[in-house]
Amino acid sequence: MKIGFIGLGIMGRPMASHLKAAGHEVFIPERASLTQELRDAMTVLPDAAAVAEAAEVVILMLPDTPDVQAVLFGPKGIEPALRKGQLVIDMSSISPTETKGFAERVGRKGCDYLDAPVSGGEVGAKQASLTIMVGGPEAAFQRALPLFQAMGKNITLVGESNGAGQTCKVANQIVVALTIEAVAEALVFASKAGADPAKVRQALMGGLATSRILELHGERMIKRTFDPGFRIRLHQKDLNLALQSAKDLGMALPHTASAQQLFSACVAEGHADLDHSAMVHALENLAAHKV
Amino acid sequence: MKIGFIGLGIMGRPMASHLKAAGHEVFIPERASLTQELRDAMTVLPDAAAVAEAAEVVILMLPDTPDVQAVLFGPKGIEPALRKGQLVIDMSSISPTETKGFAERVGRKGCDYLDAPVSGGEVGAKQASLTIMVGGPEAAFQRALPLFQAMGKNITLVGESNGAGQTCKVANQIVVALTIEAVAEALVFASKAGADPAKVRQALMGGLATSRILELHGERMIKRTFDPGFRIRLHQKDLNLALQSAKDLGMALPHTASAQQLFSACVAEGHADLDHSAMVHALENLAAHKV
Repeated sequence: MKIGFIGLGIMGRPMASHLKAAGHEVFIPERASLTQELRDAMTVLPDAAAVAEAAEVVILMLPDTPDVQAVLFGPKGIEPALRKGQLVIDMSSISPTETKGFAERVGRKGCDYLDAPVSGGEVGAKQASLTIMVGGPEAAFQRALPLFQAMGKNITLVGESNGAGQTCKVANQIVVALTIEAVAEALVFASKAGADPAKVRQALMGGLATSRILELHGERMIKRTFDPGFRIRLHQKDLNLALQSAKDLGMALPHTASAQQLFSACVAEGHADLDHSAMVHALENLAAHKV
Repeated sequence: MKIGFIGLGIMGRPMASHLKAAGHEVFIPERASLTQELRDAMTVLPDAAAVAEAAEVVILMLPDTPDVQAVLFGPKGIEPALRKGQLVIDMSSISPTETKGFAERVGRKGCDYLDAPVSGGEVGAKQASLTIMVGGPEAAFQRALPLFQAMGKNITLVGESNGAGQTCKVANQIVVALTIEAVAEALVFASKAGADPAKVRQALMGGLATSRILELHGERMIKRTFDPGFRIRLHQKDLNLALQSAKDLGMALPHTASAQQLFSACVAEGHADLDHSAMVHALENLAAHKV
C-alpha cells in the first residue's frame, strides 16, 4: 500500500520502519532533521501536501492538537491535496473533542478518518507491540487493520464514532496517573508510619490492590529509578487533554485535576523530565518524608 | 494448641472454625447470639477473661479500635488474666498508631503481641484464603504461622515492629479506594464523551492501566452490580484510620481525604451499604451522566 507518514519523531520513526518492513511504500516529507537511514529507506517528497498527493493512506504521528490541525488544515496543510477514497489516520494523542471536528472536515473531502492513538511508548513502538485504540467507521478500521498489526498488538475498535479512540487514550492516561498517585500515597504513608515500603508492596501484590502500576512504578518509587519511562511533561499534556475535554463536556474530574497539580509541583522542583512515577516526590513533600 | 477466639462475627466465625478443623482446641466467650453450631464445635467459657485464662494464644477479630481496647484493657478486659509466655494476636483492622500502645501494654505482662489484619472479606474467610499482613517479633510470627496458614494464604511478616501489619492494611485500603476512584473517573469521562465504557475497559486491560480493580470493580460499574462485596460504610472506617493515622504522623494524604468525601457523598444518597465500586455514583453526579 502507498502510505504517507507525517511525524517522524521518537515514536514515528520505528512505526514507519515497521510499515516499510511489512512491504509498504512509505512517503515522508522533507525535513532537515531526517537521518540518512530514513532517507535511504523511505521516499522523501518536498512537503506534507506532496506526501498526501502520493499516498492512499496518510498517517499522522504528531506531538499535540495544534500540530495535527496545522498539518491537516494549516497554510501548508494537506487538505487541498486530499481526494475521495483516501484514508487519514491520526495516531497522535490529541483532544477527543477537536478530533470530531477534524474528522468531519476531512470527511467533506470524501476521505475516511480514524483516530488511533497508541500506548506503550518508545519501547512498544520499537517492538511493534503498541496498544492501539481506534475510533471511526468499521470499514475504514478493517482497511487499516494490516497497518495497525504491523505496528501494534492489542488493537481495539473502541467505537465507530470519531473521537472514541482519543477518548479511550485519555481514559487510559487518567487511570495510569491516578493509580500512580494511589501507590505513591500508600507507600509514603507506610514508610512514614515506620513500615518497609518494599515489604508493603510485596504484601499488596496478588490481592485486590494489585496493578501493573504497583508492580512497575511502585518498584521505581522504592528503588528511586526515575529515568523515563514516560516523562511527567508528557503526562501533563495528556491530563490537560482530559481536563480540557471535561470542561468542554461540562463535567468534573476531581482527582485528575488534583493529580495534574501534583505533577505541576514536581515540575516546580525541576522534575518535568523524570518518569511519571516521580510523582511520589510531591507526596513526599506533603509528608516531609521519603519512601 | 489452646486458642481463645474473641469476636465471632461474619469474619470470625469461619476463621475460628478453620482453627478448630485444623485440630486446635478453641475457647470462645459466652454471648446470647452464639449459634448452636458454634456452641457444639467450640468450648464456651463465661467471658473474655476466662477465655484468656484457658488459652495459650488469644486471637481478636473485632470491628474497630475501641472494641479491641475494651477487650484488652476495659473493665471486663483480659489484661488481668494474661500471663507470661502467652501470645495475643489482633486480626481486627484498627489504628496502626494505637496498636503500638496496645502491644507495649500487653508486652508488660510478659506476652508477645502480633497485629495481623486481613483482607479478602467474607469469601476469603470462608475459603481460608485470606491475605494476612503481620507486624511483630519474628519468633512470635513463627509460633503463629500454623494458625495463619489454617485461615489464609498470602501471609507476610511486614515488619518486626508492632503496627506494621495494620499500616500495611491501611496502605492496602488506600490503594483500593483510590484505584476504584481512578477507574470510576475514567469510565464516567469515557461514557460522557460518547464512548462505550465496556469497550474502553476492554482496551485498557492488558496495558499499563490494568489492575484487579479495573477488572472486577470496573465491570461492576458497567453492569451496575453493587451488591456487597465490601460495603462503602466499612471502607469509610478504613479510610478514617488512614486519615487519623496521617494526622497523628503529621502528613497529608490528599486523594485519600478526597475519596473519603466521595464516599460520604454516596452515603448522603443512601448508598452506605452498597459495594465500594458504587463510588462511581459520586463521579456520575459530578458529570450529570451515568456510565
